[in-house]
Amino acid sequence: MNRSRIRQAVERMRAYTPGEQPQEPGFIKLNTNENPYPPTPAIREALERPPDRLRLYPDPLCQELRRELARLHGCRAEQVFVGNGSDEVLALCVRAFVERDGTIGFFDPSYSLYPVLAAAEEIAVRPVPLKPDFTWDMPAGYAASLFFLTTPNAPTALQYPRETVRSFCAGFDGVVVLDEAYVDFAREHFMDMALEFGHVLVARSLSKSYSLAGLRVGYVVGAEPLIAAMYKIKDSYNVDRLAQEIALAAIRDQAHMRANAARIRATRERAAAALRTRGFEVGPSEANFLWARPSRPAARDLYEALRARKILVRYFPGERTGAHLRVTIGTDGEMDALLRALDEIGAG
Amino acid sequence: MNRSRIRQAVERMRAYTPGEQPQEPGFIKLNTNENPYPPTPAIREALERPPDRLRLYPDPLCQELRRELARLHGCRAEQVFVGNGSDEVLALCVRAFVERDGTIGFFDPSYSLYPVLAAAEEIAVRPVPLKPDFTWDMPAGYAASLFFLTTPNAPTALQYPRETVRSFCAGFDGVVVLDEAYVDFAREHFMDMALEFGHVLVARSLSKSYSLAGLRVGYVVGAEPLIAAMYKIKDSYNVDRLAQEIALAAIRDQAHMRANAARIRATRERAAAALRTRGFEVGPSEANFLWARPSRPAARDLYEALRARKILVRYFPGERTGAHLRVTIGTDGEMDALLRALDEIGAG
Repeated sequence: MNRSRIRQAVERMRAYTPGEQPQEPGFIKLNTNENPYPPTPAIREALERPPDRLRLYPDPLCQELRRELARLHGCRAEQVFVGNGSDEVLALCVRAFVERDGTIGFFDPSYSLYPVLAAAEEIAVRPVPLKPDFTWDMPAGYAASLFFLTTPNAPTALQYPRETVRSFCAGFDGVVVLDEAYVDFAREHFMDMALEFGHVLVARSLSKSYSLAGLRVGYVVGAEPLIAAMYKIKDSYNVDRLAQEIALAAIRDQAHMRANAARIRATRERAAAALRTRGFEVGPSEANFLWARPSRPAARDLYEALRARKILVRYFPGERTGAHLRVTIGTDGEMDALLRALDEIGAG
Repeated sequence: MNRSRIRQAVERMRAYTPGEQPQEPGFIKLNTNENPYPPTPAIREALERPPDRLRLYPDPLCQELRRELARLHGCRAEQVFVGNGSDEVLALCVRAFVERDGTIGFFDPSYSLYPVLAAAEEIAVRPVPLKPDFTWDMPAGYAASLFFLTTPNAPTALQYPRETVRSFCAGFDGVVVLDEAYVDFAREHFMDMALEFGHVLVARSLSKSYSLAGLRVGYVVGAEPLIAAMYKIKDSYNVDRLAQEIALAAIRDQAHMRANAARIRATRERAAAALRTRGFEVGPSEANFLWARPSRPAARDLYEALRARKILVRYFPGERTGAHLRVTIGTDGEMDALLRALDEIGAG
């Protein structure tokens, strides 16, 4: 008898480590890929309505929001699942599509949440190492029950070629989740694959491009039977009233999101060039962050030196990631502050 | 190979059916135990703050809210877990404390979500029938890995005697979750048992007594190792910024909640008496609803007749529940409208 009364798989596993969210003010936060610009002012209407309606449960099926998302993506509302952040969406994919003796695949490195989701469900993982330059490297005959494909990838910021992704999807026997959390900062998206294939889902987030990380709304688009299975096992009322209303306003203002994404892309290209000038190795980015390798000091030391100057970037320890830093694109002023700090530190 | 690509347990199971949430207006909603009075006006401050902060992730650990709840209950913040509604809290209890070959117990009837949570995790259930009058009936030697004990019970509205609950907890080997969603409408609560026993958790909800069903905030109090296990497997940012801020304001205004609960209790006693006068069998209620058995027409027919008059109550089909209706306590005006409709229908 396990006297702790805690499930052994839970005792054994390591939790996901989110990026630091300092409670004290004064930090320049370039560590969790938040958007430096505010969300659309259109969300104020929902906030300014009398709050009495909060006494009533929300629509458990997010119907109005799903209809709007369906219009955006040219599909039916029944092909859209809305969750409490795309974290909930990803967790439900594991629980809806993977048998207990199944397997979960993902590239290494990619979103470090995936193996945590697998561990919590005691499901075996089949990680696939990317090439040393972080490009696609899928072994022939590879199989898994579910493959999480982050595209553009995090933390590497690279987009895989369309034909590579499409031909992987076409040949894969399990469920493919294209995790497009960063796609609004990329040149193209692969939503068409969720509409074409019965076993491909595309997950999106309002956290980054819509500047709503604080709200927790994510969604996934795919074939109706897969979406219906997710609805069977979600918490009854998984997305609250305010989140549904605010998300609806945000989705309806595509122009605001697109303008912010364009600003961030412009800043990204300037920041990437400035880092390269200083000697950093910076790959092309299709996301709202850079994946930058300093030659000096070592990445971990640079992370600490920046933190001492109240600039937070993200450092992922480990053989494949430990030489790099992931730097979120902030405002132009924040990136200038970062560059000044790097010069003070003598980093390059 | 399961060609549907959906986990077989998910295909087989039946989803939880939440009470009807009509999208069209004009209904008197006495079907989902919502509070008829608005939440504290103190929540307006959070809504009126500039929304720019929504671009930032929320505190993943809800620290300020947990400190406030710890003050309220006289415990440490580390003994409190906050979730996206108590539905998330209950689901995480299953996933944190029950091995795959374990068992989940609950009384029949009680909250119909529990067997759904078990089915989604492929965990065996050991339901315990209540007596025909819905009072406590625990067989000697009963054991389970986790027991969900709804107290006051839903849909029966009965509170179990303190000494009965305490002695059950003391002798039970698994984890006991005292689901106190309705406890602010009862004469007493059992929070002390979560602080006394290392294997007892008390779950609470802001949906009913705090008039915040639309917000999705629930929490659970218990021993630190159990709470820590839940934090390991929750979604990274499970409670959004607005929900944390609004919940904090609501918890701080205990007087508003207490005054509404007192009003509802007074209306409850009047409504119970009026139903009994008409011939309904109505047990004592310690919740914000009545469990009422009509002699005519049959419960299902009465549910339909009320629905035709745009009054929604809750009908639970089944041998043990099908003779009753669960009637949420609304405003005095709403209860008067219900009584008039019953008289028109000739119910009693």
